[in-house]
This record gives sequence, C-alpha cells and structure tokens, in this order.
Amino acid sequence: MKIDNSPPRGTRDLLPDGVAARDHALAKITEVYRRYGYHRIETPALEDIRRLKGGEGGENEKLIFQVLKRGLDEVVEGGTRLPDLVDLGLRFDLTVPLVRFYANNHATLPSPFRAFQFAPVWRAERPQKGRYRQFYQCDIDLIGEASVLAEIELIEATTEALDAVGLTDTTVRLSDRRFLSALAHHVGLDQSQWPGFFISLDKLDKIGWDGVRTELVEKRDLPATAVDQTRSIIEGLVGLDPSKVADRISDAVPAVPDDVVADMATTVAGLTALGATRPVRWEFDPTLVRGMGYYTAQIFEVSHPASSSSVAGGGRFDSLVGRSLGRDVPACGFSLGFERIIDLIPTTPARAALAVLVEQDVPVHHAMRHAREARAEGREVTVVRRSGKLPAQLGRLEAQGFTGFVHLRSADGTAEPERPLGSAG
Amino acid sequence: MKIDNSPPRGTRDLLPDGVAARDHALAKITEVYRRYGYHRIETPALEDIRRLKGGEGGENEKLIFQVLKRGLDEVVEGGTRLPDLVDLGLRFDLTVPLVRFYANNHATLPSPFRAFQFAPVWRAERPQKGRYRQFYQCDIDLIGEASVLAEIELIEATTEALDAVGLTDTTVRLSDRRFLSALAHHVGLDQSQWPGFFISLDKLDKIGWDGVRTELVEKRDLPATAVDQTRSIIEGLVGLDPSKVADRISDAVPAVPDDVVADMATTVAGLTALGATRPVRWEFDPTLVRGMGYYTAQIFEVSHPASSSSVAGGGRFDSLVGRSLGRDVPACGFSLGFERIIDLIPTTPARAALAVLVEQDVPVHHAMRHAREARAEGREVTVVRRSGKLPAQLGRLEAQGFTGFVHLRSADGTAEPERPLGSAG
Repeated sequence: MKIDNSPPRGTRDLLPDGVAARDHALAKITEVYRRYGYHRIETPALEDIRRLKGGEGGENEKLIFQVLKRGLDEVVEGGTRLPDLVDLGLRFDLTVPLVRFYANNHATLPSPFRAFQFAPVWRAERPQKGRYRQFYQCDIDLIGEASVLAEIELIEATTEALDAVGLTDTTVRLSDRRFLSALAHHVGLDQSQWPGFFISLDKLDKIGWDGVRTELVEKRDLPATAVDQTRSIIEGLVGLDPSKVADRISDAVPAVPDDVVADMATTVAGLTALGATRPVRWEFDPTLVRGMGYYTAQIFEVSHPASSSSVAGGGRFDSLVGRSLGRDVPACGFSLGFERIIDLIPTTPARAALAVLVEQDVPVHHAMRHAREARAEGREVTVVRRSGKLPAQLGRLEAQGFTGFVHLRSADGTAEPERPLGSAG
Repeated sequence: MKIDNSPPRGTRDLLPDGVAARDHALAKITEVYRRYGYHRIETPALEDIRRLKGGEGGENEKLIFQVLKRGLDEVVEGGTRLPDLVDLGLRFDLTVPLVRFYANNHATLPSPFRAFQFAPVWRAERPQKGRYRQFYQCDIDLIGEASVLAEIELIEATTEALDAVGLTDTTVRLSDRRFLSALAHHVGLDQSQWPGFFISLDKLDKIGWDGVRTELVEKRDLPATAVDQTRSIIEGLVGLDPSKVADRISDAVPAVPDDVVADMATTVAGLTALGATRPVRWEFDPTLVRGMGYYTAQIFEVSHPASSSSVAGGGRFDSLVGRSLGRDVPACGFSLGFERIIDLIPTTPARAALAVLVEQDVPVHHAMRHAREARAEGREVTVVRRSGKLPAQLGRLEAQGFTGFVHLRSADGTAEPERPLGSAG
C-alpha cells in the first residue's frame, strides 16, 4: 500500500533551512519592535465561530476552517443545519483575536497598549503557487492612542523592521479613509454607494481607469460624471510634493474635514522630521483603499520594487474594539506580509558546524566528551559514526553544512586535530 | 448586550509578561539543542484525520478537534455519518506529524536526522486547573541512529536544556520496554496479557502495589503468583548502584536478551563518562512504562523535586517511521513538558525601558527624535503623552516596567536629562 505522506492540501512542511531563514528574519523584526515597546502576545488558534463570522473579516469569513462540536452523535439527524454542528473555527487573521484579547484583558494592560503578534492563520483558499492555507501574519498594534502619534510611530517602526531584514528600498503609500468618503460625497455619491465605489477604486492598479469606469458605471450603476470627476481629482493629487499634500487635498475636495487635513499635516511633519536621521520614502496615494471595511482614518501600504503586491499595510480602526468591549477605544495597526518578505530576502548564511567522526570500534562516550568540549565554546557539534569511504562521507558532511571535523580512530579516545571540510576531503 | 470576550473554553490568552517568560526559556533551550545539531522544523497544525486516527495516538485520538470539509451543503442529509463530514484535524502531539514529515521529506534530509520542534498541540480534554486545550510541546528527535548513541545524546542534551532554564536538580529515570516484555514473559504471562499488565504497572506511583495487584488480579484476571513474582523482582531492582544495573537485570530476569543488557551497559558507561564534566543524576527505574504503545526499547523520564509529574520523557520508537515510510528507520525522541517547566521556573527580570514623556503642546516629532536616539543604543523606548498629575503618571509607568524617563516640556523639543523612575516619582 502506497501511503501519501504529503501535508494536507494547500499546506506545507518547513525544513530546517527554511525555518532558520524565517527565525532569523523574525528575530530582526522582533528586536526592532521591542525597542519601540511592542511586546508579543498570544491568543489561541481557535475562536468562537460566531465571533469569526461576525462581519469584520470580509471575504475571509467564507474561508474559515470550521471545527466540529465534541460529543456529537455518530449519525447526523436529517435536516440538521451544518452551523449547528460547529462551535469553533481557526482564526483567519490576527485582528479579530487582538480585539477579543484587548476586550478580555484591558483591565490589566497598560494604556496605550502596544501589541506584537507573530502567529499562523488559516484560510481555505483555492491552493495556488505561493499561497498557502496556513501562513504567518506579523502584526503590531497600538490601542488607546487617538492621535497620529500612532500612525507615525507604526510607519517608523515598520519601515525600520523592513530595513532590518534587508528591505531598504521601500515606499510608504499613505491615504485616509475619511478623504475617500469626502471625495465620494463631493462627486455626489450617496453613502450607500460608497462601499462599492471603494471596492472598484481599489482595483485601479490592476484594471486601470477604463476598467474602473466600466465597473462603476455598468455594474454598479454610478453616474459617469461622478466617475470622471473622481478620476480628475485623483490624477491631480498623484505625485505631490510632501509639503503640499495637506493643503492640496483640502483644495481638491473642500468637503474634507479640518481634522483630516490637520492629521495629514502632522503625519507629514513627523515623517519629514524622522527623515533627518533615517529617510522614510513615502507618498500620498489617493487611490489607496485597503480591503477591510473596519478602517476609519489614515491607511497605509508599503511597496517594494521586487514585489508586485505590498510588503506591509495597515491603518486606523477606531470602531472595532468598541464592538467587543462596549465602548470605543482608538486603535491603529500595521501588518507585515511575512511570507512575501521571506520570499524577497536572501537566505541566511550557512552554519559553522563541527562533526566528531567516530570509528565503529571506539566507545561512543569518547566522542561525546570531545563534542561536549567544543559545545562549551558555543559551537554546534554533532557526533557522526564513520561509515563507508572517508572522502565520500566528508563530502556528504560538507553538503550538510558542516565546516570542520575531528576524527577519532583509537580506542582510547584520542582525537586527531580539527581539520576544515572542503579542503580536507 | 454583554459580550463574552474570553477565549474558547479550555484555552487562554498569553499576556506580554507570560510570553516573554516563555520566549526566554525557549531561547535557552533552543541554544542548547542547536549546539547538539538539532534544527527546528515545522509542520502544519492540521493533519489528515485518517492519519490522526491511525492508532498511534492512544487515548489522544478521542480528543481530536475535527475540521469540517469545505463546500458541504448547508443542510445535512439524514443518516450521514459524522466522519463523512470531516477530512482534517488539529494535531494532538508532535510525533505523528514528525513521522509524516520524515516520510515526506527523507530524501532531502541528512541521515541521521536531528529534528527540534516547538509548536502548539490541541486536545479537547475536560478543562481543569493547569490543563489547557491548546498547549506547547517541545520535542527533539534523532531519526536514523540505531545505537544507544541516540539515547545518551538525547539524555545529555535534554538535561543540559533543563539546566539552562534553571532546573538543575533533575533525575533521569531509565528503563527498557524489552526488559518489561522479558519480565512479563518470565513471570508466565501470555503476550496478549502484556499491554494490560503494562498499563496497570504504570499506575504504581499513584495506586501502590496493593492497587496494582487488585487491578491485575481482579480486573485483568492475571494469576496472583505472577503479580507477586513481578513485585519481588522489581523491588529487588530499585535503587541499584549504576555500575551494577546491567548485570543485575540479567540476573533477575534471565530472559532479557543480551543486546538489551549490552545497550544498558553502554548507556550507563556513557552517562557515567559524561558525569565527569556535568553530572547527570540518573537511576534505573523498573516501574517506568511510559504510556504510548509505540516505544520499542529504552524509555526515560526526568523528575524534578518541585513537580509531581515528569518534566520530560521519551524513548526509542523503531517501528513508527516504517508505518508511514514503508521501511523501518530507527528513531528516538525526547519531549520536554514545556508548560510544566514554565510553571516551575522563576519569571524573567523586568525590562529596562525608557519613557519619553511629552507635554500636549510639544510637537510629537520632537519626542520621536529623542526616542530614536535612545533606540539607536538598543534601548526599549516609548513615547508617552503627559496626562494628569506627573507623580501619578510616573507611578503608573514604573508599575508597567519603565525604569527611566525624560520629560519634554518646551515646544522647541529640548528634553530634560534622563531621570530614573522609582526615586523620581
């Protein structure tokens, strides 16, 4: 019988080199976020299915791995609805759990609260190259800070974390959901039309203005004049000089509230000031929407020339915590596209491991004693039994990442001096 | 409406201090295992339900969180069997996934292969104090080494890892499944009676000899003479001088095969030799059984005076890989009781964080510049808005783990010199 030993469809095994590269990147990111005062929290992988299906997950709610209740009868009664068999699901993101975590633990947490999360999420997407049904998300969130101090800090910390893993050539694209709402209002759209308007606008980089116009006019039945006016305003706001952004958005869309303009001015001043010691390349991007419906103010994405999709994204979500806690708490978060980042950065250098080669007739505890002495110096050491021809075995060890070896031949445990691999074989 | 924000029944949120203590311990353990050449691998949390229910998980198979197939009809047809609705489950241990991983990837892995795993597992146990439905396991396994080199190395590495997290006062208890089988045979039990015999014997530390005797004779219908003879042999083998163990087990149970005695002698010699540089306290424990049915030879557990249950355990399982791979590969593993260990060790020292206190009328980017300068020195720095009375706010910061602060009062961003918290408030 042939057994299929592959992992479940759409998931994967991570081999030692892959895990090492990921751990290396994570350590760099963690160190940056630690210096900004973000500490890791952890929530269970499972959440109540009603919470997961509560409407904050958008399309992701259709992709939940649902968990059967325990203790059910072996045979299902006719007419039973599937949801009646389910009580839990695997989380599809880290934001829904974060909000529950904050609502559950807020009394013992500092305010504002800085949270760092690195954890797997699960989505039953159609498997395709580079997309997995289990993948890691890496989020930082600042809960309880109402001002754009949060936005500036998150942009600073995230671009610094990307720098730390070697992605220095990034650009932050910045916008504000409230600007988009004012724009939609300005061109005469009714509030009920805004969500569809935003969804189509979000596709601009994929389908272009012609595609967006067709979709808005033909599919969503929006007036062509509103679409054309939108295009004209947005095109006038692309590629602005940073110092002019705040003024220009209020000129272009007079309905933009004053606090939105003031927030933009403060964020710009902050990012500009930070540029004196470590430049943060950024631009105002009036076409930026971000998929999730829960964003309420500034939103951002980070682009890298080697990646067609963003390497990070986030924004402010001031109403989300309130839905669990019962009172609104301002919140802002940034998520690194960890899996994408891992694909972009070079792999870690090989380790410097020592092999203690022991002949079959030498008592193994002699080899272990040699290994222990080298380990005491912090080295990675493996006891390896001699087998087959020596040069062939040395070649295999070199291919496995060993860089040196000592050879124990005599039964009294005396070792030959250490020799490098690669030149010795 | 009151919303329940607690995590699912039997699971828990981990707060920053808890995660920090866990990460600290994990880093110590990882560093030890790295020096022994064990590298971390990762497998998906979900496995095929047929594999999880394949019979290697013992009682744990009844505790699986089962995952519903995707794309099922909303209403279940009458007579549908529950298993027909399920295709995946959350892993209940790291051994079943390890074996699948090895069978799936063996062609690209070195031989022998040293694997380290640290990952959550899920069991739908009845929630009780200190027991969780999601908890971490921490396993090292050596696959492809047939000799007790594996056992000695695993015992050495594991006790060193326990030392590294501060559990120095450990005792390794050692036995061999083949000794137990020989004992069962020696006292006249039929092979069909062995599993029940072992299960009852395993309860000796809980129910004592009287309890074991009652269970074996009355419940399992074993001859009282066999039980009494077992007791007499086992009591004669408790507390042996290490150098005498190998000889004494073959004296007491002549049916013990020679290679079992030779393996025990080699393990004893190895552990004794290692004792010259770092003593490993160990003892032969003829009452040690270990629950899992898949162990085939030497088995071990590690005790600590502060814990009523073991802090680590493992053994050799030479037949398990073969069930997936199609050919037997020798294997030996050791699992740390990570959650138990975390409960036993002291918490990590507080962090040394700096608060940059900024008055409401000072532009926030001045504070961010000060923060950045201190972060460049590797410090943890948080920008904090001034609010309320200064001494009260300083008190709160101290309670949150901040150790110093600088105060920005003037609009030009000049900061007062850093002051320590605790003495300043």
